[in-house]
Parts: sequence; structure tokens; C-alpha cells
Amino acid sequence: MTEDEINERHNEKARKRQAARVKIMADKTQEKGLLIVHTGKGKGKSTAAFGMVCRALGHGMKVGIVQFIKGGWATGEKAVYSAFPGQVEHKVMGEGFTWDTQDRARDIAWARAGWDEVKRMIADPDIAIVVADELNIVLRYEYLPVDEVVAGLLDRGAMKHVVVTGRNAPEALIEAADLVTEMVQVKHPFRSGVKAQRGIEF
Amino acid sequence: MTEDEINERHNEKARKRQAARVKIMADKTQEKGLLIVHTGKGKGKSTAAFGMVCRALGHGMKVGIVQFIKGGWATGEKAVYSAFPGQVEHKVMGEGFTWDTQDRARDIAWARAGWDEVKRMIADPDIAIVVADELNIVLRYEYLPVDEVVAGLLDRGAMKHVVVTGRNAPEALIEAADLVTEMVQVKHPFRSGVKAQRGIEF
Repeated sequence: MTEDEINERHNEKARKRQAARVKIMADKTQEKGLLIVHTGKGKGKSTAAFGMVCRALGHGMKVGIVQFIKGGWATGEKAVYSAFPGQVEHKVMGEGFTWDTQDRARDIAWARAGWDEVKRMIADPDIAIVVADELNIVLRYEYLPVDEVVAGLLDRGAMKHVVVTGRNAPEALIEAADLVTEMVQVKHPFRSGVKAQRGIEF
Repeated sequence: MTEDEINERHNEKARKRQAARVKIMADKTQEKGLLIVHTGKGKGKSTAAFGMVCRALGHGMKVGIVQFIKGGWATGEKAVYSAFPGQVEHKVMGEGFTWDTQDRARDIAWARAGWDEVKRMIADPDIAIVVADELNIVLRYEYLPVDEVVAGLLDRGAMKHVVVTGRNAPEALIEAADLVTEMVQVKHPFRSGVKAQRGIEF
């Protein structure tokens, strides 16, 4: 084939793709608040939630974040919030990573307090997006009953978005969610001795 | 088991986990610029890259973004940049989604121009993190030679981070990368007629 023929074949394919896409998009007319889950063992679950938070801040929307496990959101994130005064409510529950705490009863109390915050933010009509960061881990440890949490996440205003992160999302939550992404670890630099770095992990 | 026994068993496990974690982290002492790839058909590839960008902005770092396919980064993102004046260089290549363009020769010229921008940002010592958004799609379409791109991404300062996004990351890029995450679509609301929404998709 000549270069002209390659180009013409490409252009013909592109025209067909464009027509197919226009047809698909024409059906997508509904707006609704989504229940979004980021799960899996790979990176990017909280970071993608933070990316959504930032985008919402840029749109002038108000967001609520409840961090069930300390450590995921740190100084970099806080500095971004302060650039959008009054748009972020951020609550940190717990006193460290789960594997650092050695008191199950206290963990359960923190989990309950965090869930109360999530419910309050879901009920607040001014908050457009609620992030329940690492809630899946809390559910995995059975610090909160899955049925109660799923029911609470489903009982929200029609336009309220909720993002739940953490590995091992329970099946009942995946069932209830509108959008579920699994972050799969293909390759990780920890294996070769590289530590967590500013701008990358925190 | 009594509640006390359950708690004590939990706490003993937690102590072991903590000890194991301290041991693992002690080996992670190296700092280096990472080549990071977000691939897969699921959502969150560009959003997680944007989350990293925002975190870096919060740290006062300067970032460079080259967007190979128009459409992924929009008004929400731009508003965040303007809150951090002088910290973001953002170049948009191309004139729309690949399936909207109908001129392969023009696409190749845009891809080349975008790659030149990426190389310039990689060479700029003031820029800490470079995002090559949807570069994988450009490679998939063979608009740029994979070998040239991988060599260019590897030829960078010791502390420079580069994030490449897009589905279908080529094997040679995955080989070269330090951190690769595949975003897998488990459930997507498009299937049930929900359109792209402010704060979620853009």
C-alpha cells in the first residue's frame, strides 16, 4: 500500500468510529449521583479519588473526605485544600495504619465515628462529593456491618456522588455501586528498594 | 471466644504485622525518579495522574503535562492550575479524540510535536514531574516509534518522575517502567445510560 492508501484507510476507519461514538453518546442522557468504588491491590485508588476531589474543587463544588486510615492523605493534599478555602471538609479517623494499632475496641469506635461523619456529609445538601477513603479496609476487618454501610451509601440525594476506596471491597458494595474500578499492581518499585517519595506517594 | 479474647487475638496479630512492616520499610531507602504507567481499560488512569499533579503542586513542585488526546483534562483541572500560578506547564496536542480525527498524517505531526514537548519538559531541571497523558494511545496507533519513546523516557535526570497514561501500554514500556498499574473496569454506569458528569468525568 502507498502512504496515501494507508492514510485513506485510516481516515475511513476513523469516520466509522466517530459515527459509532456519536450513536453511543446519544443514549447517555441521564445525570445521577454515582456510588464509585476504587479497589484492588494496585496503587492509585486514593490518588484517583483525590484527583476527582481536585477537579470538583476547580468547578467550585464542595467536597467531604473521611479518611478511615491515617497516612493516605498528607501535606500535599492539605496545601491544595487551602487554595480552595471553605470547599473541603476533611476528617481523619484513627491513629495510624490498621497494622499499627493494637487495640481493636478503639479501632471499632473510630470506624463508627468515621461512618457517622460520612452519613452527615451525605446528608449535607451543600456537599457534592463525599470520599470515604479506605472504608473497604474497615469493612474487611468487620469494624462496621456491611449491610448497614451499603444501606447508608444508597440512601442519599439523587445528585450526590460517593467514592469509596480500599482493597478488598466487599461483594455487597460492588453489587450496590454504579462504577467500580480495580487497580491491579503490575509492577511496584518497593520490590527494588525504592522508598515512598514526595509528590508520588504523599 | 469472649470479646476480650477476640480483642487480644486481634492485638497480637496487629503487633506482628507492625513488626513485619517496620522490617520491610527499613530496606526502602532509595530515592529515584520513577517511570510510572497507568494503563488498562478502566477509569482512573488520567485522574490518578492528575491527583499526583495536584499533590506535587501542594508541595510547591513544578509539573509539566502533555495531553496527547484532547478531552481528558478540562475546565476543572485548569481552575486548579490557576490556584498555583507558575507551577504548571500544560500543552494540549491534537484536535480531539483519535476517533474524531480523520487525517492520519496530521495526527502523526501532532504526536511528534507532543513528544518534543515531553522531551523538553524531561530536560527542564525545574520540572519535577512530567505527565504524558494518553501517550499509550499514540504508541498503539504507531504514530511514534516505541523504541524511540522508551529510550527518551529512560534518558532523564535521576530524580525526574514521568507518568504515562492510556490503555494498551506497549510491552517495551511496561518493561522499562518502575511502577505499572492496570485499571480494570469492573462496572461502568455508561452501560445503564448515565452520561459524563461534572466533577466525575471532567
